[in-house]
Amino acid sequence: MSETINIQEFARLEMRIGKVVAVRDHPNAAKLYLMDVDLGPELGRRQLVAGLKPYMPPEALQGTLIVVVTNLEPAVLRGERSDGMLLAAQEGDRVVPLTVAAPLAPGSKIR
Amino acid sequence: MSETINIQEFARLEMRIGKVVAVRDHPNAAKLYLMDVDLGPELGRRQLVAGLKPYMPPEALQGTLIVVVTNLEPAVLRGERSDGMLLAAQEGDRVVPLTVAAPLAPGSKIR
Repeated sequence: MSETINIQEFARLEMRIGKVVAVRDHPNAAKLYLMDVDLGPELGRRQLVAGLKPYMPPEALQGTLIVVVTNLEPAVLRGERSDGMLLAAQEGDRVVPLTVAAPLAPGSKIR
Repeated sequence: MSETINIQEFARLEMRIGKVVAVRDHPNAAKLYLMDVDLGPELGRRQLVAGLKPYMPPEALQGTLIVVVTNLEPAVLRGERSDGMLLAAQEGDRVVPLTVAAPLAPGSKIR
């Protein structure tokens, strides 16, 4: 069980709805995708690196609404920049992206 | 735009899939629901207070899979304990809970 955090710590995290515009294989990593994600008018389009390749084909992600942490320090993963982190839930060897229960505009904030 | 955070800060947050077992009106607040949520074998069942009443009827939440921050300090909202926080996305006057793109067991962790 994790340590307790307070609401101020939680509030430092920015999460938004993103729409997956394109998915392609990472050129140097067997388990990673490169994804172009529309994060709405304020943030625009960003590239994310996500470890979803063992769990779903690109077509299952294309066009979907996902949940992205948008204010993490950018990372470089095997030579490709990741400008945000996709959130997914894991149960044993299954990994499933988070989404919204009904469609909302890209860029919508999570609270 | 929010300040940048690092991955260690993000990792302090625990989020899990919960299944909504029951939804009822908060006795002392027009906009709040009390929800009983199954958070799986490790955490069990908890009561959450959520400000969703203006946005959806109880039936729209009952039985659904939601995303819960499970290691926030418990809060008391108008006399009712909230032992976790439901995550939702907001676009203007619409608020929609986060969920998973395919069913997963309650208690599954978000990463």
